Amino acid sequence: MLDHASALVTFSGSGGGDWIVEDIRAVVGAPLPPTERLSIETGPVLHLAQCAWSLRGVISHLRYTTRDEAALLGALQPPLGRPEATRGALIPITKSTTWWDLPQDERRAIYEERSRHTSIGLDYLPRIARRLHHSRELGEPFDFLTWFEFAPEHEDAFDDLVARLRGSEEWRYVEREVDMRLSRAG
Amino acid sequence: MLDHASALVTFSGSGGGDWIVEDIRAVVGAPLPPTERLSIETGPVLHLAQCAWSLRGVISHLRYTTRDEAALLGALQPPLGRPEATRGALIPITKSTTWWDLPQDERRAIYEERSRHTSIGLDYLPRIARRLHHSRELGEPFDFLTWFEFAPEHEDAFDDLVARLRGSEEWRYVEREVDMRLSRAG
Repeated sequence: MLDHASALVTFSGSGGGDWIVEDIRAVVGAPLPPTERLSIETGPVLHLAQCAWSLRGVISHLRYTTRDEAALLGALQPPLGRPEATRGALIPITKSTTWWDLPQDERRAIYEERSRHTSIGLDYLPRIARRLHHSRELGEPFDFLTWFEFAPEHEDAFDDLVARLRGSEEWRYVEREVDMRLSRAG
Repeated sequence: MLDHASALVTFSGSGGGDWIVEDIRAVVGAPLPPTERLSIETGPVLHLAQCAWSLRGVISHLRYTTRDEAALLGALQPPLGRPEATRGALIPITKSTTWWDLPQDERRAIYEERSRHTSIGLDYLPRIARRLHHSRELGEPFDFLTWFEFAPEHEDAFDDLVARLRGSEEWRYVEREVDMRLSRAG
């Protein structure tokens, strides 16, 4: 998969993707229709009529991360596609209008100084690979699509990671969240 | 025009828009082809084949503005569409990869603490109305499209505003900029 800035990525629920959907459930708000497989494609996608649903996001620049935090993340973050990382998770979320109406300094304070979003994520590196996709500007139903990959023995750690984030002040602004767990096919 | 968050806006160079193009020139980088009129439409646009060019952007949340700055802007910013504001300007810009690779804290420091972007803009309120559109996540040729409206007697003030911004440290990261001046038709 491409890793450069501003690449469009489409996650589609369909019969023919590379990832088998093991579980899909709504954490908050409306669910997504069930699907057997998930496909992940970069660039424009033309066969959407064959999909149960399709979610698009863009890989983009960091929005809250300071230089020191970015350096730590850069040193510890594993790439996607590790052979041992046969489990995946797709977590689409939407934040409330209240969140988006907050000024940048207050969103940053909630995100990191009070919710420790980056710090919590660092606790699970390099076990859990992560890539964030921005969807809000595309007029999509979710604001963000976060894709994770990890080895089966780290699924408990992943559960722990998402539970800590869901307990944070930042998550009070999440009004829709779906948690989809997957296994790499073949 | 719509004013809510995340609305898609399309600026099209065409024969039939509401704004007469008085001047269009490249400040840095490649120019845009000349056109007689500019149309501004919200929502998806279907007749793009009839346009010389078409640029899309999304009205979105503030990216660098603190609560205090947002309050000042909110108190002073005029709306678009004032009857006396018969002059317009569309300034599409693209920033360099170096800019986008900077962490948030350093982009903020350049944007405001060192370049005074918001402070300079405040000096021209309420004379000059402004609306920012984000294009980078849409895969567009420009990162931002800024639309301005002002009365003819404030065109000198507008020239002064853009000259001050172009002299700032932030503008060293601008690798493409077009300056288009317009008059409301009819």
